[in-house]
Amino acid sequence: MKVGFLGFGEVASILSEGLQKHGATVATCIEERSTKTKELAEKSGVKLYKTNIELAEVSDILISTVTPSQAIKVAQEVGKYVNGIYVDINNVSPKTVKKTLSFIENRKTVDAAIIGSIKKGLNVSVIASGDYAAQFAELNNYGMNINVIGDEIGQASAIKMLRSSFTKGISALLFETIYSAYKMGIDEEVLKYIAGTECEGFKDSAISRIISSSVHAKRRGEEMEEVIGLISEHMTPKMSSATEKFFKSLNEDIDNLENRPKNYKEVFKLIDKKEKK
Amino acid sequence: MKVGFLGFGEVASILSEGLQKHGATVATCIEERSTKTKELAEKSGVKLYKTNIELAEVSDILISTVTPSQAIKVAQEVGKYVNGIYVDINNVSPKTVKKTLSFIENRKTVDAAIIGSIKKGLNVSVIASGDYAAQFAELNNYGMNINVIGDEIGQASAIKMLRSSFTKGISALLFETIYSAYKMGIDEEVLKYIAGTECEGFKDSAISRIISSSVHAKRRGEEMEEVIGLISEHMTPKMSSATEKFFKSLNEDIDNLENRPKNYKEVFKLIDKKEKK
Repeated sequence: MKVGFLGFGEVASILSEGLQKHGATVATCIEERSTKTKELAEKSGVKLYKTNIELAEVSDILISTVTPSQAIKVAQEVGKYVNGIYVDINNVSPKTVKKTLSFIENRKTVDAAIIGSIKKGLNVSVIASGDYAAQFAELNNYGMNINVIGDEIGQASAIKMLRSSFTKGISALLFETIYSAYKMGIDEEVLKYIAGTECEGFKDSAISRIISSSVHAKRRGEEMEEVIGLISEHMTPKMSSATEKFFKSLNEDIDNLENRPKNYKEVFKLIDKKEKK
Repeated sequence: MKVGFLGFGEVASILSEGLQKHGATVATCIEERSTKTKELAEKSGVKLYKTNIELAEVSDILISTVTPSQAIKVAQEVGKYVNGIYVDINNVSPKTVKKTLSFIENRKTVDAAIIGSIKKGLNVSVIASGDYAAQFAELNNYGMNINVIGDEIGQASAIKMLRSSFTKGISALLFETIYSAYKMGIDEEVLKYIAGTECEGFKDSAISRIISSSVHAKRRGEEMEEVIGLISEHMTPKMSSATEKFFKSLNEDIDNLENRPKNYKEVFKLIDKKEKK
């Protein structure tokens, strides 16, 4: 089994390590890549090809792990030359993945998405959809944890996107609720009494969500734009539009956050400080 | 200890039963009340007074358990005559509770709120704030479960309101996410993969939240109006405004729901049906 990676960042590097341990041959191409990528690839001991096209020709399964903005471009580049299965595992919308995979002329395409953190290693949950998803899932014989969830391109990406939009919405909701409570001097009590009906660990997770909202406000606001595009195809987005607005406005309130705040009250104080200016 | 109840609905009836068992004397006034209220009061064996004023004069602790719309009116009526502690435990906003309690001339007032379902009985969690909250909490000697959370009138009501607005927001967010997923044919997978990072029991609770959203859309939309008033004093409400809009629009989509839907797909089908009209 020869697995090729288009792009060689954290995802490719972590999967490569595990796949090789399980006996797969792994390859990539590092021409015209950054020094960091080259170092990662060389260190991981994968086979190196001169061009993406050559890599596409020899791989049984070719996995695209580039940046979201590069997903379409790289598919266009190799589309004619793919011999095996082409898997797009990038963090893109169903619309983008459909466009991306339309360039793969042999039509042996898979929409895949990583659920959770790649730091878990080879065993991280991966969902896959499309007619060739079952073939991609043969990598489970090499230690991967792929679940085929449907036969349409776009389904895997949509699941990932809706899940992540839900999580962002919860964070926004928590932030708004606890910030209002903080302004009234009752934030700790509100956290406590919400925790009473939510599940164990709620309070710690709530606090960590408030802090990471402040750290990732910009990216989350941008990511919500694509979610809204997706939801708009089926209903008028209300909660997701509010989530987008919330993070964009939070990003304006908390600009240039240099260090991760130590606790949620520190985050709220930053907003108060900005307001006073 | 003599506890008086202004109004005698479910809350007063359940608390009375428990308080009496623990040795408190309980009284109310049923003049000009509905037949149902009269029956409840007579059945519960509490002492009956001719007027609310008389009741106010003799009670050590007088608890207002009327409808939210009656809270101010009844405080106005008895305000001059209250001798003991006056507790407003109605489901009203901090603003309304402040106005209500301003009519109690002896200033021995408490803002209280029931957290969770009164069906739990005397032991249901009650939070209380205000200078006289500790005196009200003496009813813990008679089996109640009162926590003093602050010394300002409005704090207890605000905690209850923010908690309930958070819960409504989660329901709206879930509904929007799972309905979009349902339209894409991936609702079960999205529920499953969200459940993977949320806590145990998430899926069942999510499904039950979608169904009750459809049943209570009208009331929730209305209740959100007061929440938005509260949050607006401290920040621009985004998530809570969206929650209000969500429930108001859901109420239009699902009108005249005669029976509780058996499962969430049935709820979604109602919306689809309405859309086709």
